[in-house]
Amino acid sequence: MRTSIIPLVVLLATLTAATLPAASDPLPSWNDGPTKTSILKFVAEVTKQGGAGYVAPAERIAVFDNDGTLWPEQPVYTQFMFGMDRAKTVASNHPEWKEQEPFKSALAGDLKGLEATGVKGLVDLTALSCGGMTAEEFDQLVNHWLATARHPRFKRPYTECAYQPMLEVLACLRANGFKTYIVSGGSLDVLRPWTERVYGVPPEQVIGSTVITKYETRGGAPALVRLAETEHMTDKSGKAIAIQQVIGRRPIAAFGNSDGDLPMLEWTASGSGRRFCLLVHHTDAEREWAYDRKAGTGRLDKGLDEARTRGWTVVDMKQDWKRVFSFEKE
Amino acid sequence: MRTSIIPLVVLLATLTAATLPAASDPLPSWNDGPTKTSILKFVAEVTKQGGAGYVAPAERIAVFDNDGTLWPEQPVYTQFMFGMDRAKTVASNHPEWKEQEPFKSALAGDLKGLEATGVKGLVDLTALSCGGMTAEEFDQLVNHWLATARHPRFKRPYTECAYQPMLEVLACLRANGFKTYIVSGGSLDVLRPWTERVYGVPPEQVIGSTVITKYETRGGAPALVRLAETEHMTDKSGKAIAIQQVIGRRPIAAFGNSDGDLPMLEWTASGSGRRFCLLVHHTDAEREWAYDRKAGTGRLDKGLDEARTRGWTVVDMKQDWKRVFSFEKE
Repeated sequence: MRTSIIPLVVLLATLTAATLPAASDPLPSWNDGPTKTSILKFVAEVTKQGGAGYVAPAERIAVFDNDGTLWPEQPVYTQFMFGMDRAKTVASNHPEWKEQEPFKSALAGDLKGLEATGVKGLVDLTALSCGGMTAEEFDQLVNHWLATARHPRFKRPYTECAYQPMLEVLACLRANGFKTYIVSGGSLDVLRPWTERVYGVPPEQVIGSTVITKYETRGGAPALVRLAETEHMTDKSGKAIAIQQVIGRRPIAAFGNSDGDLPMLEWTASGSGRRFCLLVHHTDAEREWAYDRKAGTGRLDKGLDEARTRGWTVVDMKQDWKRVFSFEKE
Repeated sequence: MRTSIIPLVVLLATLTAATLPAASDPLPSWNDGPTKTSILKFVAEVTKQGGAGYVAPAERIAVFDNDGTLWPEQPVYTQFMFGMDRAKTVASNHPEWKEQEPFKSALAGDLKGLEATGVKGLVDLTALSCGGMTAEEFDQLVNHWLATARHPRFKRPYTECAYQPMLEVLACLRANGFKTYIVSGGSLDVLRPWTERVYGVPPEQVIGSTVITKYETRGGAPALVRLAETEHMTDKSGKAIAIQQVIGRRPIAAFGNSDGDLPMLEWTASGSGRRFCLLVHHTDAEREWAYDRKAGTGRLDKGLDEARTRGWTVVDMKQDWKRVFSFEKE
């Protein structure tokens, strides 16, 4: 495979002249301005051979949070909707769930109640309602759900609701020799079936919360069976730890949107050499949502302060994104 | 990056004619015969577009055990030598180790005693003697040890003792679009500092046993600190489970040498489409070692039977390898 290298140094020079030829713009869904420039400047600097910020391709690791960074996390995390449907399907075998969170809220369709159970509720809901399935069976379950489920506000498959500007950042980084990873607090196996198709990120570059897995023989063949128990949660500091365990290199770029992403950004930022950290600030109630310091899901409070202190890039969704979704009219 | 594709279909045709032009032979340290042919035939079939065995590049995942498959595991696993040196260095802080395995044997330099503690002893010895170090500190410790330690029989740095024929298999697979992974029962962080340099396998493609890791602040900066406690052991069925957790795809080729590798080979073999499994049989006491069904380290018993039943490739080291190490005279 050959990676085409976009001459970003040249591109950047033209950016300051403010007349960008549309055909060569790697970020066409971003409005021109300091946010877009900060991304392109970083990419230009780390890829400029002989430059002070140059980073060898093998070390060009970029990590992306998923919910709220690459697709919406309102009204609740998408995985809650999946888990809610699954819990309802198997609830008759679990009378005890009626009084137990996160199942109680899931069965009642209570989104506020679900939200209150947090990332732990999110991963436990899936783990406990899917215990005993093989890796393949779970994969099919997720694919089937995605094919039929619709986002409650946008009335489209969830996978069509990826943020178009962020898809362009992913593609731009890869075109410049980066390896792009998803690092989500959500369950690993709920992400893997579709991240390659939607984000261009293959299964081996997805990091997420895991369940305890057992190796056994089923029908004469070996099977990997998911037990009904969460093993690791890859939220908050769990993100930095999982990055070390799975990748074994410190990323040079990190993209998030909430305080839960802070350890990942801090870990990325504190390495030597050129680094880039970005937070998506949800400021667009009209096209998406507006929330930050007081949000139940995706709270961005400490992160806003830290970004200012450290000079991280903060995306103002309303100002910086020409369009949010690919299905929007331009 | 561009991968040069060796026309193996053509090469294979010439192989049967037994006159192989040296320059185009991707496996020059292998003697001609059915073992070498089985490897090249597999690579030719999965890369032949339109052929019945064709596999898309993204699915070309190959997994390799390390000890006994890519480098020697006698007289004991190399990591035991590292752990023994480390235990001696810090023993004065741990008077209790004198009576506790694997430390007792480590401090006495008792290789037979160490061997008896198995893979659990191996990973615990490292975990417990290196607790509290950061990821970077541990990396430096391993690199420093490797720079000075010598293999007791070959009197060379361990990293010069990689099996030359297996290095050629790794390179041949990568030249044909494969992603190559190490899946070792040994400790992940003992492997990562050198696998790229020696095997061409980057840190993110190494799977091994892990320690519990903590995220904390040291000297004002975030640090990932290794606790003195083993988290996961990636031996036996742990290899198949870790492959699913880290890679998320079933490999199409697996290379091992002992019964501890069987679940990894069985998991690989039981997928659909063309598959390849290989066991290195240590039959060469003169150039390396000869051991199998009764070995303390690297026992290959059930595996020999299973390979026969299932038609897996078994390398007869003495017959199949023209040379074992790159430092041998040809």
